[in-house]
Amino acid sequence: MPPNTVALIGAGRVAHHLGKQLHANGWQVVQVFSRSLHKAVELAAIVGAQPLDDLQDLTDSAAVYLLAVSDKAIAEVATQMTHIGNKLVVHTSGSTPSTVLAPYFERYGVFYPLQTFSFEREPDFSSIPLCLDASAEADLDMLKQMAQSLGGPQYVLKDDDRVMAHLAAVIVNNFTNHLYHIGADILAQHDLPFELIRPLILETAEKIKHHHPALMQTGPAIRGDEITVNRHLAMLKGIRPEWSELYKVLSDSILRTKKDRSGS
Amino acid sequence: MPPNTVALIGAGRVAHHLGKQLHANGWQVVQVFSRSLHKAVELAAIVGAQPLDDLQDLTDSAAVYLLAVSDKAIAEVATQMTHIGNKLVVHTSGSTPSTVLAPYFERYGVFYPLQTFSFEREPDFSSIPLCLDASAEADLDMLKQMAQSLGGPQYVLKDDDRVMAHLAAVIVNNFTNHLYHIGADILAQHDLPFELIRPLILETAEKIKHHHPALMQTGPAIRGDEITVNRHLAMLKGIRPEWSELYKVLSDSILRTKKDRSGS
Repeated sequence: MPPNTVALIGAGRVAHHLGKQLHANGWQVVQVFSRSLHKAVELAAIVGAQPLDDLQDLTDSAAVYLLAVSDKAIAEVATQMTHIGNKLVVHTSGSTPSTVLAPYFERYGVFYPLQTFSFEREPDFSSIPLCLDASAEADLDMLKQMAQSLGGPQYVLKDDDRVMAHLAAVIVNNFTNHLYHIGADILAQHDLPFELIRPLILETAEKIKHHHPALMQTGPAIRGDEITVNRHLAMLKGIRPEWSELYKVLSDSILRTKKDRSGS
Repeated sequence: MPPNTVALIGAGRVAHHLGKQLHANGWQVVQVFSRSLHKAVELAAIVGAQPLDDLQDLTDSAAVYLLAVSDKAIAEVATQMTHIGNKLVVHTSGSTPSTVLAPYFERYGVFYPLQTFSFEREPDFSSIPLCLDASAEADLDMLKQMAQSLGGPQYVLKDDDRVMAHLAAVIVNNFTNHLYHIGADILAQHDLPFELIRPLILETAEKIKHHHPALMQTGPAIRGDEITVNRHLAMLKGIRPEWSELYKVLSDSILRTKKDRSGS
């Protein structure tokens, strides 16, 4: 088989975007597996591959097998793929150790795109960091070549480091989005439009393109403006006590971080 | 005096950007006050105004007096401006009631740009929401005209609503930036570059241009993935216990919000 062949295990958001981008950049996607046949068919049609809903139909026709499934499905799927022989099998998970694949395959690794994907948005792969790892040097080279086809910056990260990167990602993505959600809810409860804070959300993110967030912190907490902080805590208690607790924990953390930085 | 005249009280980030933009859009900035003369001189030179470091030198030559000073300085500055006579005086604070100006002026209001400003970045005023309020209808019209010169969307918000918008702003700006800071610190402590999560930070914000954050939430907390959540809590305890508490409060809040939405 040619070296630039890949099989996609999974047809969710990550499989969808990785598959499309590999297909567009010289990789032949030979098979697409999903437990939902219609999902496999849909993605397979886009990338010109054979759809499967039974892993027993997975052949040895690919050089790389990309496991783009949920974390908890990785091991289960792996157990049903052992018939493919001596092939390179990689998962796309930030938080799962590569060694979860070791009982099933001799050649294994990780191909983790550190980005949030949705069906509604086309990702810009030229800016998506790809975190790579492999059990053998030659296989790492193959993953580097695959990453190069996608166009983004690449990082070789061992399990411990990748898990840390994933933790940081959860904090700046999931938690940040939750703060957006709370902001939107506060406005909605007072019949104010979300549009009021959308430009601020964008600017807050844009700022860190060129500046470290430590230098960009403003607001009542870091100013030590207790009057405003206490007024906000009281307001939130009236809206939703849980948000008041969250405000307090975050404000305390901002102040403590400032004290640590200034060495006091 | 012509109607499009303004005096700037303050020479910080907000005064700087508002002053420059008004100057560029047909407003004559007549005087700039700052307690630091060099700051007044610097901004006055940019906007073609007279610099002051003594409020007694403030004349009645402007139609609007913009108080772009820190929240706690507003009342103090106002007490020293009463000699200007029957002029419109507005502050630029999200969290301060307009009525703080009532003891000193008959005509008062608020001109609050809901954005984060820094000296390092040129703001795009066409997207900055301007929150307006005034004690008299004719003065509100003047503020609307001033807002129109700046080019952004305008909202007339009473004190209670503006204070809510400011609270939402603190949450999506200050707290989000703190999460960026924590993400950067976690990476730095493991010798990993901040560049790993910069694209994710941007995409997380870009997503809400067209989608409500409630629909964009992903990650271990909303999936109810306790294994990953507990692993992250343990990792953070080893790095900085305060971050572990913060992770827990935020994850619990994500789960509770999901339950409330689904009505369970």
